[in-house]
Amino acid sequence: MPKRVVVPFAGEEPKSRLEPALRDEERRRLAYAMLADVCEAIRAAGHEPGVLATGALSPPAGLMGVRALTEAVVTVDDRPLSVAVNAVLERALPSTGVNTGHEGVAIVMADLALATPDALADLFGTPGEVAVAPGRGGGTNALVVREPAFRVDYHGASYLDHRQVAADCEASWSVVDSFRLATDIDEPADLVECWLHGGERSRAALESFGFGLETTDGRVRLER
Amino acid sequence: MPKRVVVPFAGEEPKSRLEPALRDEERRRLAYAMLADVCEAIRAAGHEPGVLATGALSPPAGLMGVRALTEAVVTVDDRPLSVAVNAVLERALPSTGVNTGHEGVAIVMADLALATPDALADLFGTPGEVAVAPGRGGGTNALVVREPAFRVDYHGASYLDHRQVAADCEASWSVVDSFRLATDIDEPADLVECWLHGGERSRAALESFGFGLETTDGRVRLER
Repeated sequence: MPKRVVVPFAGEEPKSRLEPALRDEERRRLAYAMLADVCEAIRAAGHEPGVLATGALSPPAGLMGVRALTEAVVTVDDRPLSVAVNAVLERALPSTGVNTGHEGVAIVMADLALATPDALADLFGTPGEVAVAPGRGGGTNALVVREPAFRVDYHGASYLDHRQVAADCEASWSVVDSFRLATDIDEPADLVECWLHGGERSRAALESFGFGLETTDGRVRLER
Repeated sequence: MPKRVVVPFAGEEPKSRLEPALRDEERRRLAYAMLADVCEAIRAAGHEPGVLATGALSPPAGLMGVRALTEAVVTVDDRPLSVAVNAVLERALPSTGVNTGHEGVAIVMADLALATPDALADLFGTPGEVAVAPGRGGGTNALVVREPAFRVDYHGASYLDHRQVAADCEASWSVVDSFRLATDIDEPADLVECWLHGGERSRAALESFGFGLETTDGRVRLER
């Protein structure tokens, strides 16, 4: 099991790629709802989430179960995502020697609205120096790092890049096959996944915005 | 383990929703490549795939390892998908009595290019009268049916409909959490998943069409 579980969160202008579907205030509300759902799932999996935020958290009024957030340990680092995460890895992992045990640091994205305690426990319990849950579109949605030399770079096809970084530092590479962890809520087409399979607060947020299922010739979508 | 594994396949005008990205002949080639990858994965998971096709199979010339297909048992039924699948369920499952053991019938979609023997074995081994691997956009990508009264309806949000049908016939309902089984290749944005994580023939088909990774501000895409 990882020693630390870090949840990076950009609270200022969250979820900008959802702009075609959601207003500013809605994006902020959904982002905090997802963060709270993710933190609760991590806690139910037996770990204390540490939020790595670009600024002080300011959850919107009336967010259900906001305690899940206010009780979380928050570290503020306003640098870009990869730089901030690498600073955590540098601090938390021993600079020499390889740790192949079950400790290490987990990085779990804050928009994994479908994450459940079971899916996270599977990830946390996956052995290997680097264990990764790929995200759609070549992303890296969650990972456990036990190799001190490993560094993240979330830009572009980070799944491929991270696999290469692991190979470069001769770290073993494990992949976790989870629909729940592969589904980050980033674009309008993702909202339907949150509606169908997401955590309680995230689904409630979408319901409060007035969305409903729309059947098409192909996949169903969320519309209002 | 299910007694039968059925792979529905519409060979005449396959993958029409990929039209914005692929020419007719390419869609046909990719569809057959994915079917062959899926059949091979099922076989590697210890089962003999039975293709349920709308017409006789006619794999394109030069398709790698086409033996995977020519050796498959093919049943032709030109009726709509749900009707044809329900006919299989009616024939294969006992009309009375509930079978809660590990037998039953599995239905695996032919466009699950990311399916691996491990992911399929997990599905096949999942207990319950109905075990389902949800697909993106409310779909049902793979399921195991052990309840004789259960019938499929693939239109619309079939995941929700199937859950309701299972509840109506008081069948137990299990959900398999797999990114590989959740990812059907149906729309242009899905092609990148096939490229990054897909089976050998499916990836080779996309490579032969001249695609490559394109990095964007968000998820990477496949472009040419």
